[in-house]
Amino acid sequence: MNQTKIVISIDAMGSERGPKAVVDGILKSAGLNPNVEFIVHGEKKSISKLVKNSNLQTRCQILNANYLVSMHDKPSQIIRNGKKTSMWSAIESVKQGKAQVCVSCGNTGALMALSMFRLRRLKGVNRPAIACLWPSLNKLGYNIVLDVGADIKADQNDLFQYAMMGLNYARKGFGIKKPRIGILNVGTEEHKGRSELKLAYDLISSASDKEDFEFVGFVEGNDIPSEAVDIIVTDGFTGNIAIKTAEGTANLIAAKTKSAFKTNFISRLGGLLAAPSLINLKKEIDPRQVNGGIFLGLNGIVIKSHGSADGTGIASAINLGISLAKSGFYSSEIKQKDQLNDKIR
Amino acid sequence: MNQTKIVISIDAMGSERGPKAVVDGILKSAGLNPNVEFIVHGEKKSISKLVKNSNLQTRCQILNANYLVSMHDKPSQIIRNGKKTSMWSAIESVKQGKAQVCVSCGNTGALMALSMFRLRRLKGVNRPAIACLWPSLNKLGYNIVLDVGADIKADQNDLFQYAMMGLNYARKGFGIKKPRIGILNVGTEEHKGRSELKLAYDLISSASDKEDFEFVGFVEGNDIPSEAVDIIVTDGFTGNIAIKTAEGTANLIAAKTKSAFKTNFISRLGGLLAAPSLINLKKEIDPRQVNGGIFLGLNGIVIKSHGSADGTGIASAINLGISLAKSGFYSSEIKQKDQLNDKIR
Repeated sequence: MNQTKIVISIDAMGSERGPKAVVDGILKSAGLNPNVEFIVHGEKKSISKLVKNSNLQTRCQILNANYLVSMHDKPSQIIRNGKKTSMWSAIESVKQGKAQVCVSCGNTGALMALSMFRLRRLKGVNRPAIACLWPSLNKLGYNIVLDVGADIKADQNDLFQYAMMGLNYARKGFGIKKPRIGILNVGTEEHKGRSELKLAYDLISSASDKEDFEFVGFVEGNDIPSEAVDIIVTDGFTGNIAIKTAEGTANLIAAKTKSAFKTNFISRLGGLLAAPSLINLKKEIDPRQVNGGIFLGLNGIVIKSHGSADGTGIASAINLGISLAKSGFYSSEIKQKDQLNDKIR
Repeated sequence: MNQTKIVISIDAMGSERGPKAVVDGILKSAGLNPNVEFIVHGEKKSISKLVKNSNLQTRCQILNANYLVSMHDKPSQIIRNGKKTSMWSAIESVKQGKAQVCVSCGNTGALMALSMFRLRRLKGVNRPAIACLWPSLNKLGYNIVLDVGADIKADQNDLFQYAMMGLNYARKGFGIKKPRIGILNVGTEEHKGRSELKLAYDLISSASDKEDFEFVGFVEGNDIPSEAVDIIVTDGFTGNIAIKTAEGTANLIAAKTKSAFKTNFISRLGGLLAAPSLINLKKEIDPRQVNGGIFLGLNGIVIKSHGSADGTGIASAINLGISLAKSGFYSSEIKQKDQLNDKIR
């Protein structure tokens, strides 16, 4: 493989829908990205068959890994005993420089622990973060929220690092020139909230000129999908609760809407006529479409796809990985972290 | 006034929509509750006019209070200088035993601070909590979530108290015989999450037999509207982020749905036909309909209505107060807190 070729390393065993959904995702992404190759990790026999059926033999190298990380495995167990798992193998390809990006649908805790253990944190980064794309009213259609669950704690320095990581991700991943950064809090007034948030406010605010971003200050939960901000910084506990609360709310509304359309003949007809527009809407705000959660702050790019994602969702995560690899995101992240390191020490 | 008469004390000045929305709310509630009386606090001249126009003179006593608490006032300022505000006056009627319940749409922080300052915490309660009604798939149509913003911190004992307060509220307020209690966390496995959550898990779990409730363990953000739980316990920072995130998500979906219906002629027609059912749906999941956030753990009932609530929302908060006053909620809360005090000390 030559250096400019983009290779994506994929854990085929982590999806709740099984390897077929993963190979479907590769197929969807491969069609859009003709020069990209894939290393697929998992049970060789069954995956070979799926790859052959999808006519992807020339695009995929298959590496055998018979064990899989279950959703119930503790991260510490996987670090001790997980060498033969498809997840370990998928990360290993990035560590060895054979691929630029690792994509997995598996157990988030184990994936983060293994990524930290094998790839190591970037110099100067205390806590890596998971950044997600949140459907929003922005032109782009989503905002970046981090951390949504890498770690349950974050102090002011961590929050400052999240802001800088998010800044780089927004620039390199999505071409936003002057991103707008906000800190998630229970009020927008400067005196409100936990002490580490007030300290992070000062740290981030004072960096805005030099790093050329706009600091919008504190934002609240209802501002997460706002068009007035691009990057929302929070600790991983709060971020995880927020993202799952949004998912629960969307599911509740979907369930209630479905039964509202079934109220009577007229509403059924209305639902039928409006269906194509509503299906488009569902695609637009479907978390599967903006499915890539990315681990920031590591020596390599690792993307976590939703465990229940289908082929479309997985393809979306792979496509995000390809864009980042093309943009030189990883080397720019290293550069920024080195500068950062000088700043907060 | 004799003892059995129910009287609701209402801050007429706190609403973003002005005193008219508040008097509209009183009118809506008064129609449904013929034996209830109201003490209305605010600028006497304008309120008298509104009350007269609504033909409520025989039901309302008006107490003059020319100052109002703004959304930007700090709680500490109001405690020092707020004696002439309508909010202070409204709480005072409960303190003096002239009303059983205080309802205000004003500044939440100031209302909680004043309520604590004037009414005092129940014996044995460390941190009072704000409980909200969350639209859900439950038979009742909502779940109880607390704390959604009284305090930004909570340790395991606070969380245990929230569980017991929620239990009493569910029984007395809504007649749920054996409520199901969950703790909000980033995963459902016992080993996950912050240390105080694991300790609260043990405390709440061990009380389930004696207090006759079902403990469902940890729940995640997407479980908040679930039909598998009635009461969700969390700290006020996380609860506040969650409730506002849900609001933001619902607003995003509403905005996107509106434009989806405008895509073309067919979808417009579909939207028109489905409109009555969708309007019913909006009512069902409209936070204004389940608008009463209640302060638990104080010597008296204080209900916070949404600042932007209209007459319907305010009536809903008043109606909640009336039900609680009728149910003997307050005296049962005192009884439970005394038992509780013995338990966790």
